[in-house]
Amino acid sequence: MPLLVVGSVAFDSVETPQETRENVLGGSAVFFSYAASFFTPVRLVGVVGQDWPAEHTELLQSRNIDTAGLRVMEGKQTFRWRGRYLPNMNDRETLDVQLNVFGEFDPILPDSYKNCPYVFLANGVPAVQLKVLDQVNSPRLVMADTMDLWINEHRDTLMTVLDRVNGLLLNDSEAMLLTDETNLVRAGRRILEMGPEFVIIKKGEHGAMCVSREETAVFPAFPIGAVTDPTGAGDCFAGGMMGYIAEQGQFNARVLKNALAYGTLVASFNVEDFSLDQLRKIERADLDRRFAEYKAMLSL
Amino acid sequence: MPLLVVGSVAFDSVETPQETRENVLGGSAVFFSYAASFFTPVRLVGVVGQDWPAEHTELLQSRNIDTAGLRVMEGKQTFRWRGRYLPNMNDRETLDVQLNVFGEFDPILPDSYKNCPYVFLANGVPAVQLKVLDQVNSPRLVMADTMDLWINEHRDTLMTVLDRVNGLLLNDSEAMLLTDETNLVRAGRRILEMGPEFVIIKKGEHGAMCVSREETAVFPAFPIGAVTDPTGAGDCFAGGMMGYIAEQGQFNARVLKNALAYGTLVASFNVEDFSLDQLRKIERADLDRRFAEYKAMLSL
Repeated sequence: MPLLVVGSVAFDSVETPQETRENVLGGSAVFFSYAASFFTPVRLVGVVGQDWPAEHTELLQSRNIDTAGLRVMEGKQTFRWRGRYLPNMNDRETLDVQLNVFGEFDPILPDSYKNCPYVFLANGVPAVQLKVLDQVNSPRLVMADTMDLWINEHRDTLMTVLDRVNGLLLNDSEAMLLTDETNLVRAGRRILEMGPEFVIIKKGEHGAMCVSREETAVFPAFPIGAVTDPTGAGDCFAGGMMGYIAEQGQFNARVLKNALAYGTLVASFNVEDFSLDQLRKIERADLDRRFAEYKAMLSL
Repeated sequence: MPLLVVGSVAFDSVETPQETRENVLGGSAVFFSYAASFFTPVRLVGVVGQDWPAEHTELLQSRNIDTAGLRVMEGKQTFRWRGRYLPNMNDRETLDVQLNVFGEFDPILPDSYKNCPYVFLANGVPAVQLKVLDQVNSPRLVMADTMDLWINEHRDTLMTVLDRVNGLLLNDSEAMLLTDETNLVRAGRRILEMGPEFVIIKKGEHGAMCVSREETAVFPAFPIGAVTDPTGAGDCFAGGMMGYIAEQGQFNARVLKNALAYGTLVASFNVEDFSLDQLRKIERADLDRRFAEYKAMLSL
């Protein structure tokens, strides 16, 4: 079933201890869409400038990602991000952000998107996330991502978002910031009291925790010996997860768990190269193969 | 089958944001022994001072832990450690260490211990670990723990230890320090080149990774909402793991994986209260019950 994603489309410049790549394809909606496209048709909403090459749109379209919602603003530039990874490849510093067109992002959904049953609100201003929710017709499942900036500075609007979504995705430090708890299990339970039915707490190289009313589950990341570029791993995790859920067309504890696993595995491929380079080399069968390895690894 | 452990026996003073406990029973060999005693008979080698109360020895003996190797030094004091946990309950600072009798620890194995098939060398001076190895008769499986101090200051002797053990246990920062690698999978593989057949890398609240020639596996910690005192969790993990291995009486990839899980679960109970307080309240059936939960949580 189709999956809607609203988020950033960007050019990333990534510096790692080994190598630097300039202006490669990035952005939360791009990583998410590509990751989800292994499982389900995707409908993307985003904004780019006139510096956006047609080949990027073609790449997305070739993956059954609908780009009717990708607005091109003439005379303007696409969002740019530059970051540098520390030697541990888990921590990074942002060196430069040029919001450009993303600073005035005002998502308008094409009519063909409005009945999308699965919706992902990538990290962005809570007011913009709400505006998307106002345009969709009773979706089956909505998940939102967020970050420290919105928790600190737009908490009230974020609370309204939390009240209207089924699931929240955020990382461990954000979960602690949002709840003022230092233990992730307790943080997860506190977030459930804010509205969502489930919360997924990302722990970077340590995997992810899922907390719902029924259960608390923790899954490790798939062990990767050669991490080349972690940029987009969290969005690929979300895309793999939501893509799998949309593919299943039903939602229960078992689907959620498998979705977490597939999200983990798409992310594990993503970190093996810059931008979408590794994802472009694999297909669904590679994910299924790694799923079998992961399942065997965890089977007791 | 019997399991030998050589390590520290201590009085711990533990400060947490909620509560402080003074001079409670601790030490690596104590936590290890108690954890292992759910699975197998244990033979303990350690040293205490005249301040050691008989009731502690009786507690250990009541668990089928042989204390023939526990030397009491008259006119001297037992090892004391004082630490304070940060609010995240994962990081801690050592406030005071009084080595006392442990500073002159010279482990002499009773004859009845020398044919013990399973051996655990708890964290200690590598030269002392070697001295233990010189006293045992062709054990089936030996695992050693170590720490940053020995990696930095006794590296050569530690290398000799690594050459003589089957498995090494250490935490993530120590694994990176030992190998000069920032990726744990690569660090684990480098350690295999130093001699051990397998290495277990502890990641605190994030679980543990096991690297052997055959496979690399990562397991999460069991999610605990109320962590009261993490002191001894690593030793309980080791004790549960080695205890399970000794109980099985055979060693293969499957046994190792289940052993990792049982180690994880004994540790998960241990952090729920100070000292051995929580472990004293549970029995093997509680571990098996939590094992079933953990297995279900990880099953895809």
